[in-house]
Amino acid sequence: MGNIFRITTWGESHGKAVGVVIDGCPAKTKIDLEAIQFELDRRRPGQSKIVTQRKEGDKIEILSGVENGISTGTPISMLVWNEDQRSKDYDELNDRFRPSHADYSYQQKYGLRSVAGGGRASARETIGRVAAGAIAKEILKQKFGVEVLAWVESIHDIKANIDAQNVTLDMIESNPVRCPDPETAQKMIERIEAVRKNGDSIGGVIAGLAKGVPAGWGEPIFDKLEAELAKAIMSLPACKGFESGSGFGGTLLHGSEHNDEFFVDDERNVKTYQNNSGGIQGGISNGMPITIRAAFKPTATIMKAQKTVNLNLDNVSISGKGRHDPCVLPRAVPMVEAMMALILVDHALRQEAIR
Amino acid sequence: MGNIFRITTWGESHGKAVGVVIDGCPAKTKIDLEAIQFELDRRRPGQSKIVTQRKEGDKIEILSGVENGISTGTPISMLVWNEDQRSKDYDELNDRFRPSHADYSYQQKYGLRSVAGGGRASARETIGRVAAGAIAKEILKQKFGVEVLAWVESIHDIKANIDAQNVTLDMIESNPVRCPDPETAQKMIERIEAVRKNGDSIGGVIAGLAKGVPAGWGEPIFDKLEAELAKAIMSLPACKGFESGSGFGGTLLHGSEHNDEFFVDDERNVKTYQNNSGGIQGGISNGMPITIRAAFKPTATIMKAQKTVNLNLDNVSISGKGRHDPCVLPRAVPMVEAMMALILVDHALRQEAIR
Amino acid sequence: MGNIFRITTWGESHGKAVGVVIDGCPAKTKIDLEAIQFELDRRRPGQSKIVTQRKEGDKIEILSGVENGISTGTPISMLVWNEDQRSKDYDELNDRFRPSHADYSYQQKYGLRSVAGGGRASARETIGRVAAGAIAKEILKQKFGVEVLAWVESIHDIKANIDAQNVTLDMIESNPVRCPDPETAQKMIERIEAVRKNGDSIGGVIAGLAKGVPAGWGEPIFDKLEAELAKAIMSLPACKGFESGSGFGGTLLHGSEHNDEFFVDDERNVKTYQNNSGGIQGGISNGMPITIRAAFKPTATIMKAQKTVNLNLDNVSISGKGRHDPCVLPRAVPMVEAMMALILVDHALRQEAIR
Amino acid sequence: MGNIFRITTWGESHGKAVGVVIDGCPAKTKIDLEAIQFELDRRRPGQSKIVTQRKEGDKIEILSGVENGISTGTPISMLVWNEDQRSKDYDELNDRFRPSHADYSYQQKYGLRSVAGGGRASARETIGRVAAGAIAKEILKQKFGVEVLAWVESIHDIKANIDAQNVTLDMIESNPVRCPDPETAQKMIERIEAVRKNGDSIGGVIAGLAKGVPAGWGEPIFDKLEAELAKAIMSLPACKGFESGSGFGGTLLHGSEHNDEFFVDDERNVKTYQNNSGGIQGGISNGMPITIRAAFKPTATIMKAQKTVNLNLDNVSISGKGRHDPCVLPRAVPMVEAMMALILVDHALRQEAIR
Repeated sequence: MGNIFRITTWGESHGKAVGVVIDGCPAKTKIDLEAIQFELDRRRPGQSKIVTQRKEGDKIEILSGVENGISTGTPISMLVWNEDQRSKDYDELNDRFRPSHADYSYQQKYGLRSVAGGGRASARETIGRVAAGAIAKEILKQKFGVEVLAWVESIHDIKANIDAQNVTLDMIESNPVRCPDPETAQKMIERIEAVRKNGDSIGGVIAGLAKGVPAGWGEPIFDKLEAELAKAIMSLPACKGFESGSGFGGTLLHGSEHNDEFFVDDERNVKTYQNNSGGIQGGISNGMPITIRAAFKPTATIMKAQKTVNLNLDNVSISGKGRHDPCVLPRAVPMVEAMMALILVDHALRQEAIR
Repeated sequence: MGNIFRITTWGESHGKAVGVVIDGCPAKTKIDLEAIQFELDRRRPGQSKIVTQRKEGDKIEILSGVENGISTGTPISMLVWNEDQRSKDYDELNDRFRPSHADYSYQQKYGLRSVAGGGRASARETIGRVAAGAIAKEILKQKFGVEVLAWVESIHDIKANIDAQNVTLDMIESNPVRCPDPETAQKMIERIEAVRKNGDSIGGVIAGLAKGVPAGWGEPIFDKLEAELAKAIMSLPACKGFESGSGFGGTLLHGSEHNDEFFVDDERNVKTYQNNSGGIQGGISNGMPITIRAAFKPTATIMKAQKTVNLNLDNVSISGKGRHDPCVLPRAVPMVEAMMALILVDHALRQEAIR
Repeated sequence: MGNIFRITTWGESHGKAVGVVIDGCPAKTKIDLEAIQFELDRRRPGQSKIVTQRKEGDKIEILSGVENGISTGTPISMLVWNEDQRSKDYDELNDRFRPSHADYSYQQKYGLRSVAGGGRASARETIGRVAAGAIAKEILKQKFGVEVLAWVESIHDIKANIDAQNVTLDMIESNPVRCPDPETAQKMIERIEAVRKNGDSIGGVIAGLAKGVPAGWGEPIFDKLEAELAKAIMSLPACKGFESGSGFGGTLLHGSEHNDEFFVDDERNVKTYQNNSGGIQGGISNGMPITIRAAFKPTATIMKAQKTVNLNLDNVSISGKGRHDPCVLPRAVPMVEAMMALILVDHALRQEAIR
Repeated sequence: MGNIFRITTWGESHGKAVGVVIDGCPAKTKIDLEAIQFELDRRRPGQSKIVTQRKEGDKIEILSGVENGISTGTPISMLVWNEDQRSKDYDELNDRFRPSHADYSYQQKYGLRSVAGGGRASARETIGRVAAGAIAKEILKQKFGVEVLAWVESIHDIKANIDAQNVTLDMIESNPVRCPDPETAQKMIERIEAVRKNGDSIGGVIAGLAKGVPAGWGEPIFDKLEAELAKAIMSLPACKGFESGSGFGGTLLHGSEHNDEFFVDDERNVKTYQNNSGGIQGGISNGMPITIRAAFKPTATIMKAQKTVNLNLDNVSISGKGRHDPCVLPRAVPMVEAMMALILVDHALRQEAIR
């Protein structure tokens, strides 16, 4: 993924380790191990009572490309060792395809599949993305003054009403569901708890924001900035929908309502009164904040009995065991930020190339 | 765009021509010039009273890669000459940025821009995509038995109720708005007419469907099939949202409702009772129909006065002139089909490589 | 080809046209149609008595990406129409594979082939490269102060003794064989004439030079500058060998002779006393001139009878007809320059991205 | 590197580890850890008295993508821990650029450099390539019946006379210099010993051969098989020249001598009497053995005093310390095989995609 700033991830949930290689990180970037670990801790299982209780330390290790806290310009290889390989929990699943997991489609693609922990399809694969995203965030901050944030906007039918421009990382991190509206957050937590007790799962919507992006990032045709963001976000596990700016809601407006009229402010900055474009026009940033939304489906792993098929093509049933994550959204927040940051830093560097 | 079946498009709305080069088209594919022209005619301005009245013949010409109606395996170059270059219409726009167009962001990116007709940001660029998509459709049909269809599902707040599995191309083409529900189509047409008379514009939602895709297409991580479709569709002009399967609506379901339980039918085919996954699980097709939805904003060009900024950074106003397209959706239907077909054929060939 | 500055070529020798699309050309580059045509005229058949006498005007046409002589940042599409389509000349070759041409390998790859004029394998394909290379040269000159030159160093066993650092374009163009040593050039011309009369062909070596390349271009591992140059040059028709700096000759030196010792000159520039590295160390330019050499085999088309095989797999014989090019080297000089320029401009822009 | 079968390498000579990630390895490939280790042992320092005496075990570890000795289709991550990090040896080099190393060009590119062991420019980076190449070889053997071999053809002015078609791995491995002609090998070993005692270094030529490649692999234009091989081989440390088939020597032949006439043998196979094309015509394999040659310069590290420049741009001198490799060729043999195998397997899979 990426054109200048490129990442390659590897690793299965129950293999030895998971990791990432970054090519194209500019030399002399300050690499802060704690900042990377902070993001991984936001992604980590067991971080709060509303996410899966698997215990994983997820300590990042940098194997190359960094000396004395500074990037050298060469590939940065990072990994996290897998600790908690309880493959027993999954033994009964060996020959049955879990509904709405990747079991069946992997089996058909590869002729085999890793049963334990979903293998490569596990959300554990995102560790590499989040680690690389932490470095992307650093570059965006250090070189370009850009900040990327994401938060939970809705859980099931509980929707927060949020003034995006005033959201801070502290507000997001002030509660375990990562919704910057404390009252709504409390309702969301209660809902997730209730669903968990019932052995079921729920989904929701995450909002993403990038502040400080200058006009001119993005490409005009296939690599439009919103197209690249769409691909990056839709490549996250469980993501089924993406919006840029007004999104689906914008289809209910007339052009005269939807169009973002320009004005020049007192400091001679060009701005728009509203931001239905989500900061992107014709695939290229226009200097306004970049706003996106992503829909995450309810987790496929539930504790209820379900109909399915086994390897012999018999109609059978299956019921979940072990620990499950009733709602992926709190842990998906750092993933959305990471994917946004990875796309933005790549386009920042692409724009440097042709200026 | 693409990994094996790759396309490169070029051309501005008011330059000499627009075109496309296809690399990686398998040799011995039957190339039907009429089939390509058919798709371009569906995309063409002036095809009906509800789209822009610019007169463009848009006759496709094949310059290489095809001999005697058969692809030779080498790059296929196709172009359409631009006929109707009324750049006069645009003269007054020279120094003013049209709201929600690409004028300002292009200016900031490149330090200049093509004023006439939006230049590269014009929807005319999609001619190359639609022509290449027509060839992609042929390969999908000839080699893989796959059919790709798209249609208008909603215009503004008028929503059709459609049984996706029974939609045919004839039903889609039976009315100028390309909605396979004739009664709703009539309402949509009336609404578009009314909006046009008012000098305004509206948007809506297009649904896309691919039937016959076998299980196993797609890649597990960054090039998930739904991520690639998202990027391709979001790279279309005016597209602001994308859904795969249940999309945003799926966030309102519990896992026990949303999960697609498997069963084996009488012919030993593995299917799911419902298809919230939209035919894709873990980024890889599962053999069920692939279903997507795309949100298109109201056209940015309207005939009303709007506030904006000029090159000198003065606050000014602008009002549309010339012909405008009150609603892009009828012409976007073949574009959505083309983008879906281009992604699917590329993944079909990628899967052939590693089987 | 390329990462930032990317080119796509298309076209067969006896199709309608041949062309190229350039993506990633920086906006506001001055595009001089005459400079492009100058390069094409150097590549053109019929330019002198020692090359093939086919008459082709090869007039370049720009279809997009340029307005008022300035690049707009969007794809530049250029083509040359094919005029002289004497496919009659090739009729007898329909079912016989010409020795050391691409006939047989294309047939095996694609299951068919363009008989006329070698199809895609024709040197006519290089028109697109030379046109794009002319633009690459302009950018190198305008933005980076880099000049790229190539010349004929040897024809068969006639080798020129040339002081590379003092070669100029005028010296190269002062004779039809493009060897900057006039006396040797004369011998080369006579040799080529003699070989032509005998219905045979000969090869030779072209030297390439890039002056003014700053230290720091290139990548450390797979995209080493000399590796990229090797690929680009070896992708030219009839090229069978590539050297960077000392090349094969360097294997006869000891390290103590071969190593390029550094010194600082009076203007505080770091230089090396000799340049066995050819201006590239560890894959990255070191500020010294970049020097390469390329071996071109004798043209495969000869007028003598040869043994071969036909489509029915009978052992048959074949003899050349029509016009032939007894020696490709004079026309390959602009191709070598073009490929060098395309690689260098791409790496120049890549380096801009990460500085 | 690669289109379907892609590799990413990482790691510095004196960092924690070096490694590689393979994407696109077909599922169900048998992965033999011993076969990988065998190749690494051929590349390893300290394997014989004529290579550097650094002690490195270079034990490969597979972290993902393989279960029960079978590839799963997902990325294969492999690494080797660095053991012998004697960075003391390099302390004095901190501020002086070693002649003909990458020190100066890295410094200019990145604004900093890893001093110890050459950092990323160290030949230690090739561990990842050789490990990935071992897997590529397995696929070529298992799925396509292709064998890849390389050997030392010349050391300085000592040249072996070898019948390429009858060379076997055993013959290559029968002596530490990896020249399949035992008498010449003995002379080479003595020469290397003498050069080492003198604190100097020498280079030479490696020949590569691929047997069993079917006609049809390769691409017609930029990704010609010989162009891809050229890039891959020229990306190896110390490689300064590449030939395919007749190479530079072919420029001394007439077309009538050089052309490879075809014939059909008794088993109806199409062959050529000679193989100046090196098994590749028009960039595409023709079914004959693929033959290449690669020139490696004398090692830059020598034990003699040399002139150079320091970071302050003073003219100073430098003299080598520690252990050095008087001749890289014996260890470069498995690297050449690995690079050939990586390119061939990628093109094999590309050809599967479009058949």
